[in-house]
Amino acid sequence: MRKPGTYSSPHSATSSCLAASAAAGEGVMSDAEFHTWREERQTEQAQQVTQVPFEELNGWGFDSRTGNLTHRSGRFFSVGGIAVRSDFGPVSEWTQPIIHQPEIGVLGIAVKKIDGVLHLLMQAKSEPGNVNGVQLSPTVQATKSNYTRVHGGSAVPYIDLFRNPEPHSVVADVLQSEQGSWFLHKRNRNMVVEVGPEVEAAEDFCWLTLGQVNTLLSQDDMVNMDARTVLSCLPEWRDGGTEQPGAAHTGTEIRSWLTRRRAEHEVTVEPLGLSELKDWYQSGTTVSHRDGLFFDVIGADIRSHRREVPAWSQPLLRPCGLGVAALMVRRIDGVPHALFNARAEPGFLDVVELGPTVQCTPENYAHLPAEDQPRFLSQVLARRPEHTLFDSTLSEEGGRFQHARSRYLLIEAEDDADVPTGDDFRWLSARQVEELLRYGHQMNVQARTLVAAWRSL
Amino acid sequence: MRKPGTYSSPHSATSSCLAASAAAGEGVMSDAEFHTWREERQTEQAQQVTQVPFEELNGWGFDSRTGNLTHRSGRFFSVGGIAVRSDFGPVSEWTQPIIHQPEIGVLGIAVKKIDGVLHLLMQAKSEPGNVNGVQLSPTVQATKSNYTRVHGGSAVPYIDLFRNPEPHSVVADVLQSEQGSWFLHKRNRNMVVEVGPEVEAAEDFCWLTLGQVNTLLSQDDMVNMDARTVLSCLPEWRDGGTEQPGAAHTGTEIRSWLTRRRAEHEVTVEPLGLSELKDWYQSGTTVSHRDGLFFDVIGADIRSHRREVPAWSQPLLRPCGLGVAALMVRRIDGVPHALFNARAEPGFLDVVELGPTVQCTPENYAHLPAEDQPRFLSQVLARRPEHTLFDSTLSEEGGRFQHARSRYLLIEAEDDADVPTGDDFRWLSARQVEELLRYGHQMNVQARTLVAAWRSL
Repeated sequence: MRKPGTYSSPHSATSSCLAASAAAGEGVMSDAEFHTWREERQTEQAQQVTQVPFEELNGWGFDSRTGNLTHRSGRFFSVGGIAVRSDFGPVSEWTQPIIHQPEIGVLGIAVKKIDGVLHLLMQAKSEPGNVNGVQLSPTVQATKSNYTRVHGGSAVPYIDLFRNPEPHSVVADVLQSEQGSWFLHKRNRNMVVEVGPEVEAAEDFCWLTLGQVNTLLSQDDMVNMDARTVLSCLPEWRDGGTEQPGAAHTGTEIRSWLTRRRAEHEVTVEPLGLSELKDWYQSGTTVSHRDGLFFDVIGADIRSHRREVPAWSQPLLRPCGLGVAALMVRRIDGVPHALFNARAEPGFLDVVELGPTVQCTPENYAHLPAEDQPRFLSQVLARRPEHTLFDSTLSEEGGRFQHARSRYLLIEAEDDADVPTGDDFRWLSARQVEELLRYGHQMNVQARTLVAAWRSL
Repeated sequence: MRKPGTYSSPHSATSSCLAASAAAGEGVMSDAEFHTWREERQTEQAQQVTQVPFEELNGWGFDSRTGNLTHRSGRFFSVGGIAVRSDFGPVSEWTQPIIHQPEIGVLGIAVKKIDGVLHLLMQAKSEPGNVNGVQLSPTVQATKSNYTRVHGGSAVPYIDLFRNPEPHSVVADVLQSEQGSWFLHKRNRNMVVEVGPEVEAAEDFCWLTLGQVNTLLSQDDMVNMDARTVLSCLPEWRDGGTEQPGAAHTGTEIRSWLTRRRAEHEVTVEPLGLSELKDWYQSGTTVSHRDGLFFDVIGADIRSHRREVPAWSQPLLRPCGLGVAALMVRRIDGVPHALFNARAEPGFLDVVELGPTVQCTPENYAHLPAEDQPRFLSQVLARRPEHTLFDSTLSEEGGRFQHARSRYLLIEAEDDADVPTGDDFRWLSARQVEELLRYGHQMNVQARTLVAAWRSL
């Protein structure tokens, strides 16, 4: 227990240090060195990923009772089904496959001061579902099965920094959800920990300034989803951190709105066997929707000499179409705000989280009438270039999803136009976003990517 | 949207107004008038509650497939089972009955200034499981089935004040859990709303100052659980509200500890049919544990001329033994702190919430060895009278539980004794408690009662 009284932060990742690191440009590794290093990692970590029929998945099979696709150990994850009834959105009832992964993994970024500037320890990591092999990942990105090594495999580097950190060195530590349409109740522990000078970058790791990471964030398929969600949990560093004064709504008003949306809507999710789904059919190689919408479940065989296990096979969820995730931002009386949508996804633990202004795969709405199209989608598609602050195609988690990509957009709204947003939307200030991100289950993973992008501008 | 800039609270339930109301003593109703009025309500609302065999429960029956006890409408609630595996606590595996109540109800207290002093609109309400008929309840205490009147019944008074409040009049609005050993994923919307002068007290209602409610809180079985949990969500009013300076741990340290406890422990909860439970047996009149421990499920027939529905029957959960819930408190460098326990209960939505220092039914531990007795229980039982700041036997929710009562204790710890608490416990400052209570699923219902009691001293 420390003595109360002083309230200076016990670690270096304060708003001012983060702001300095964000402004720093190159740190101990130049941008040119980084790209050379990354290409080497790419070659070094080359993976061969081949789609295979389910019956060729080593260690995986369909449960005879439920039809669920499970690993014989009972660990890792499984693909089952759910039946959803919802009074949110245009479709009130459906069934779908979903990934069950009850274990809570660790996504952690280590930070330390080098020559007075905060650096982040980033990892070059290839995942089977990535379109481009290696992407920039957190220092640690490990499921509990991984890091407790229940099934052998090599030790997860740096995991001890996150399992037993000194309490005062923890900058952020919060359980956050992942894709609620694809994962049932999945959450990972998002951590940022300040480490001592003795921690050095191993072969697949490098120290980058926040400024470098922010620049890389705007490159297509460069910074992976797990790194992006951890970045979003950092303290706000713009405009002197949390010193921003006003907001369009009080914190109580925002929390009350979110509480009301959770309380008034009914979303019921019942487990269902994968073989019991309506509108989905199963071949020897895919589980697919009869209209070719949403996603397929496929089997993949992965060969690599660099992974904890050199060769393995696993199911992957392969989305149909490119997602769109867009956040409208503006200053209200000089204070940065963004427009969030209270959004129900069946896999959320508590009904509703805040999503971006727009989040959809437009193809999945093509068969629905105009009034059922996602709100603000047409404005986003008709945006002017000078209002587009961020426009990159980024990958979702490559360990579970095959070539899952979304176009992430930050769009500046007219400063003087008070868009009528309705009860599904609220403008939150940057300070309010930071506070909500200290608690789990408030903001979804797509919104968190856009918060990281927003701060990177 | 309001204009930013000024940050004075838009409603009157600020810390200073709450402090004034807490100090006010009698308001528009004297204490003597209150007790007379309450006794009248008691007579007026007399209920006859009779235990009946399950087969005599009107509208209820055992599902032929699962054995679950359900209402034929599919609404209200049901009694099913769960299988739990947990690496928390001395017992690693068990099955038990549990109440499923997926609907989110409203627990709301209306407040208004009368002659410059804030008053709370409290309700005299009898519940079938109460030991003493009428208890003091929130203005509104209604399940969604109640207030949307899906099954007839009369309108819930004052519900509109809570369904569509002016955003700026909302003082607190948060989803909070209820007993995680008895309810699966139950949560209610806890609200405090400031209302205008036009709102008057109807027959079963009265306006009391916070000081009066605080005094009543220390009386046995007087203020019901639903009122207590709403009171705990009020802003902190002691010591100038949130102006308290230091704390034993930073907010980040506290959140990190709670995140770690959630991430590192595994508590898996699988639904099970009521007829599939091990160690539980079913007669025509009870579902009981073979050792007579924990609780029974019984059927009850209720007659009354004052309820929304004049006569009805329902299952009730009848606990065995009197619970103990104790919170150790002390000032650390002048700042009030309380000792909370990171506690797993199978019905929690996210594995762990903060509970009191001690929470148990001692009888349920009688068969376990000394080292498996709840931590701090012996200290609590051996407390000195001069260190006992609060000691009342209070009722849990009488709408679902039959004669469920716990002895609630606040115990002053030695100021200079730094008790070694271990990783299951942390001292939180009053300010940190207030902040956590703005978010759901952080602090359990027994701890919330003790927070309300702590503030009432």
